Amino acid sequence: MDFTNLTQEELQARLSNFKKKYAQMQKEKFSLDISRGKPCPEQLDLAMPLLYTIDDNYKFEKSADYRNYGYLDGIPELKKIFADLFEVNEDNVFLGGCSSLNLMYDVLSKAWCFGVLGGTPWCKLPKVKFLCPVPGYDRHFSILELFGIEMISVPMTEDGPNMDIVEDLVANDIYIKGIFCVPRFSNPTGVVYSDEVVTRLATMKTAAVDFRIFWDNAYCVHTLYPDAPALLNIFKVPDAVPDRVYMFASTSKITFSSGGTCCMITGDKNFASLKKMFSVQAINFDKINQLEHALFLKDVPTLTAFMEKHAEILRPKFEAVLKEFAEGFENNEYVSWTKPKGGYFITLTVMEGTAKKVVDMCRKVGLTLTEAGATHPMHQDDLDSTIRIAPSYATLEEIEQACKVLTTIVEYAICEKLLNK
Amino acid sequence: MDFTNLTQEELQARLSNFKKKYAQMQKEKFSLDISRGKPCPEQLDLAMPLLYTIDDNYKFEKSADYRNYGYLDGIPELKKIFADLFEVNEDNVFLGGCSSLNLMYDVLSKAWCFGVLGGTPWCKLPKVKFLCPVPGYDRHFSILELFGIEMISVPMTEDGPNMDIVEDLVANDIYIKGIFCVPRFSNPTGVVYSDEVVTRLATMKTAAVDFRIFWDNAYCVHTLYPDAPALLNIFKVPDAVPDRVYMFASTSKITFSSGGTCCMITGDKNFASLKKMFSVQAINFDKINQLEHALFLKDVPTLTAFMEKHAEILRPKFEAVLKEFAEGFENNEYVSWTKPKGGYFITLTVMEGTAKKVVDMCRKVGLTLTEAGATHPMHQDDLDSTIRIAPSYATLEEIEQACKVLTTIVEYAICEKLLNK
Repeated sequence: MDFTNLTQEELQARLSNFKKKYAQMQKEKFSLDISRGKPCPEQLDLAMPLLYTIDDNYKFEKSADYRNYGYLDGIPELKKIFADLFEVNEDNVFLGGCSSLNLMYDVLSKAWCFGVLGGTPWCKLPKVKFLCPVPGYDRHFSILELFGIEMISVPMTEDGPNMDIVEDLVANDIYIKGIFCVPRFSNPTGVVYSDEVVTRLATMKTAAVDFRIFWDNAYCVHTLYPDAPALLNIFKVPDAVPDRVYMFASTSKITFSSGGTCCMITGDKNFASLKKMFSVQAINFDKINQLEHALFLKDVPTLTAFMEKHAEILRPKFEAVLKEFAEGFENNEYVSWTKPKGGYFITLTVMEGTAKKVVDMCRKVGLTLTEAGATHPMHQDDLDSTIRIAPSYATLEEIEQACKVLTTIVEYAICEKLLNK
Repeated sequence: MDFTNLTQEELQARLSNFKKKYAQMQKEKFSLDISRGKPCPEQLDLAMPLLYTIDDNYKFEKSADYRNYGYLDGIPELKKIFADLFEVNEDNVFLGGCSSLNLMYDVLSKAWCFGVLGGTPWCKLPKVKFLCPVPGYDRHFSILELFGIEMISVPMTEDGPNMDIVEDLVANDIYIKGIFCVPRFSNPTGVVYSDEVVTRLATMKTAAVDFRIFWDNAYCVHTLYPDAPALLNIFKVPDAVPDRVYMFASTSKITFSSGGTCCMITGDKNFASLKKMFSVQAINFDKINQLEHALFLKDVPTLTAFMEKHAEILRPKFEAVLKEFAEGFENNEYVSWTKPKGGYFITLTVMEGTAKKVVDMCRKVGLTLTEAGATHPMHQDDLDSTIRIAPSYATLEEIEQACKVLTTIVEYAICEKLLNK
C-alpha cells in the first residue's frame, strides 16, 4: 500500500477499513507461534537414523569404550569432523553437551569467576562492558544482563557491525572485555560478515588484553542457496591476535534441537586454560551422543549433503515470507526487510514507533512473534521498528496466513501513526 | 602379619624378604588401574537396550515433541521417576545433562556470581568457607579449590560427619556457606549417614542464612546387599530449614558413565530462583537422552530390579577385596578397612605416614591407586594413612592379584617404618 500524499480523510477511510479487517481477524480462530527459530518436525525427522547408529553390532573395541568416563574435550571422531569443517586443528576443538549457548555461558562465567589467562577475574573489576551488534540475539543479551555487564550497542551494517565504531571503542576502554557476534547469517538480519570486517575484528587493537570475541557460528552450514556468501576463517586471518576468539557451533539445527552436540574452538592458550577449568566441573560431556553424531554426520561432504535436505524444507518457507512481504508491502515506503541466503530469520523493519504495537496486535489475534525489543540489549529498541520473523517451524500455509495477518497489521499501525502525527 | 613384639633383627629379616618380593613384582608385567569408581564393561552392557527405546515406531505425538527446544527443567516422565524414587514432589525435580557434578558446579557457581535468593554474591565477600567431611570426594574439593573457598575438614564418624563439630562451626561463622555430603555409601568410606545426623543437618542453626547443603546422593540406589541401611529423606525431616538442601543424583553408575542423566532436587524458592538463572544459560538439557532414560528405567520397581543386576556384578568384587584384606592383614594391628553395604569404594587405613609411600610403590609395579591425599582437602591427608580402593572396573582375577600386591606393599611399608622409628 502506498501511503504517500494521502489526505487525512483518505487515511481515515483506510483506518476504518483496517479496523473492520482486524475485527474479523479477532473472530477467526488462529493460533501460530513464529517467535523462535525452531526446526519443524520434518527437519527433526531427518535426523532420526542418528538414534540407531550405535546398533547391537557396534563394537566399542573399535575405539575406547566411550560409554565410560573420560575424554573431557570430546571423542576424536567428532572433533575431526568439526576440525575439518572449520579448517582448524583438532587439538583446538572442545566438544560440549547439547547446547552451545551453555558453552558460551560457561566460558563467560569462567572469565567472570577466575579471569582470562591469569588476568583479574571480571567479577573483581569495577565494571565490565561488552559490545553488542544490534539488532542481535536476545539470548546473548540475557547472559550479559544476568552478569550485570554493561551492553554497548553497535549498529549492524550489511557487512557486519560498524567497524569504525567498534575499533574506536575497544581501543580506548579497558573495561570493554568482549563482543558477541553471529558472523554468518546473523540473528536476526541474516547478514554475513564481510572479509574486511572479520579481518578487522581479528586484528584490531584493544585496550583490554583479555578482550574476547564470542564468535557464535550458529548458522555456519545453514545455507538456503548454493550462492550464499562464505565466511572468512577468523583463525586464519594474517596477523590475527592469538587467543582472541572463542568460536561456537552446534548441531541444534542440524540434528536435534533438544539433543544435539556442540563445540568450542579457540587458541592453544585459551584451550589449555579452559580445559583445566572444565576438568573441575565435569568428567566428560555426553560421549554416547557424540559418538552417535560422529557416526551419523560421518564427514564434511555427508554433513553438507545433509544440510541440503534442511534447505529444501526451509527455502520455500523463507520464499513464502518474502513473496507475501513483496506483495503486501508493495509501494510501502515505511517498511523494509532482509532477504537472507541462510540462517533462521528475516528481519522486518517497520515504521518507527510501531513495532511494539504490531507485535501486540498480532498476539491478540493469535499470532505470536518475537517480543519487540528482544533484538536489542535490555529489550530497548529505541526506534521501536525491528521485528524478527522465524519461518522455520510453521507450515507453508500457516506462514502465508501469518504474513497476511502481519502485513495488514503493520499497515494498520502505519495508518494510525500517520493520523496521530 | 603380626608385627607386635618383634625384635629389630626379626623386622630386618622381614624387610629383606619384602624387598625380594617387591623386586620380583617389578619384574612381572602388571598393569591395573583401580583409582576411580568406573563401572566395568559388563555393567555398561546392561544399559545398552536404552539406546533402542526410541524406535522407529515411537510417536512423539504421545508427548510433546521432545526433539525440539523447551522443557528446561526436564521431561515430566523422567521427573516423575526421580520424584517417586526420592519421595518428593515432581515440581522440585530439575533434570540436568549427563553430569551431576556439573550441576553441583553450576549451582555453586551461581551462588558465587549472583548470590543465593537475593543474598550477596559469594564472590563479593571477603572470604567463603565450606565444611568438608573427611575423608571425602576429591572432585568436591577440587570445585571448592577452584573458587578459592576455604575448606574446613570435619572428621567422619561411622554415622556421618561429627555433628557436634559441624553445629558449633556453622552456628558461629557467617562465612561458612555450605557443606558437601555424600550421605549414602559415602565416598570413600561407605558410611550411611544416620537418621540423627540427617536430622541435625536439616535443622541446625547456621550463622549464614544462605548456608546450603550440597547433598550428593550419588549412590542412592547403589546397594550391594538387601540389608543395606536406608537414608532418611532429608526433605521430610520435621522442622527442616526450608531451602537448605540441594540434592543431586545421576545415572552415571546406573546406565552410562559418559551419557547418563542427572537431577537436582531442592526447595521451592531455590528451584524458582535457579530455574530462572538456568534459563539464561540453556534452552534445555538433552531431552532425547531424558526420554530414553524414562522409557528404559520405567518406574522405581524396574529401576530397583535393574540395580540388583549391577549388585550381582559388583558384590563378588567387593567381597574379593575384603577376603584378601582379611587374609593379608590377619593380626595386623596397623591396618583397618571399611566393609560397605553399597557404593563404589572401600577405604583402607594404613599405618600413619605410609599411605603415600604405598601408593607410590604400587604405581611402580603397575598398580594405579587413587592418589594418596586425594580424599582430603588440598590433597592434604595429615596422617598420611587413607587409601581409596575402587574395585568396580577390574575383573575378579585382577582384583585378587592387585590385593596381593597391595597387602604385601602395605606390610613392607610398615616394616620399614617400624625400623626407622
